[in-house]
Amino acid sequence: MEHKAISLEDKFGKFSDQWSPKIIARMNDYEFKIARVEGEFIWHSHPETDETFLVIEGNLILEMRDGEVHLGPGELFVVPRGTEHKPRAVRECKLMLIEPVGTPNTGDAGGSRTAMQDVWV
Amino acid sequence: MEHKAISLEDKFGKFSDQWSPKIIARMNDYEFKIARVEGEFIWHSHPETDETFLVIEGNLILEMRDGEVHLGPGELFVVPRGTEHKPRAVRECKLMLIEPVGTPNTGDAGGSRTAMQDVWV
Repeated sequence: MEHKAISLEDKFGKFSDQWSPKIIARMNDYEFKIARVEGEFIWHSHPETDETFLVIEGNLILEMRDGEVHLGPGELFVVPRGTEHKPRAVRECKLMLIEPVGTPNTGDAGGSRTAMQDVWV
Repeated sequence: MEHKAISLEDKFGKFSDQWSPKIIARMNDYEFKIARVEGEFIWHSHPETDETFLVIEGNLILEMRDGEVHLGPGELFVVPRGTEHKPRAVRECKLMLIEPVGTPNTGDAGGSRTAMQDVWV
């Protein structure tokens, strides 16, 4: 078996669409996904799971009902399960998400901004 | 509740010992740990779980019985459960580990290099 490092930079080079997380690796029942985001997302929560955001490049704001967290490169935040949040970024931000397999990007909110699942890059 | 980003750089500034992973965040039953490593570790495996390595700074080699993977900054690799591996780094490497709560650094090998669990930084 050939073993190969997964380069975030290489993977980001393979797509340009925003708000559409792509899977780059799997660990047990969890997935590592990367996404490009810019502008505002929608309010939503994940009732069944925590969700981790790690910023790779740029800046991300995670609005929550009781405050917001600002993330720059090399900073992470775990949104607790059931906590409503709305990500936004003034300029394009590259981030990594870590969450259980099958976690939809819009959580319990659904709607038109729900991205396709199971898309690898 | 105050929400605060977790800065990898800040967290690495709080310790200097090597081969002793420190927890920086928890997501469901998983932990994010950071470690400084240099030199060779021991052969071991984790029979119950995959284990993710993400290099933050420096270079890491993960030796496996059938090959090795070289990781630089921004590169990750998921060691499959039950796969024997031996991390090594020529110069100090800063890395992040993602794995289930209670996963010992020496896996099934045990011994003198087993680090204390549940140490947060």
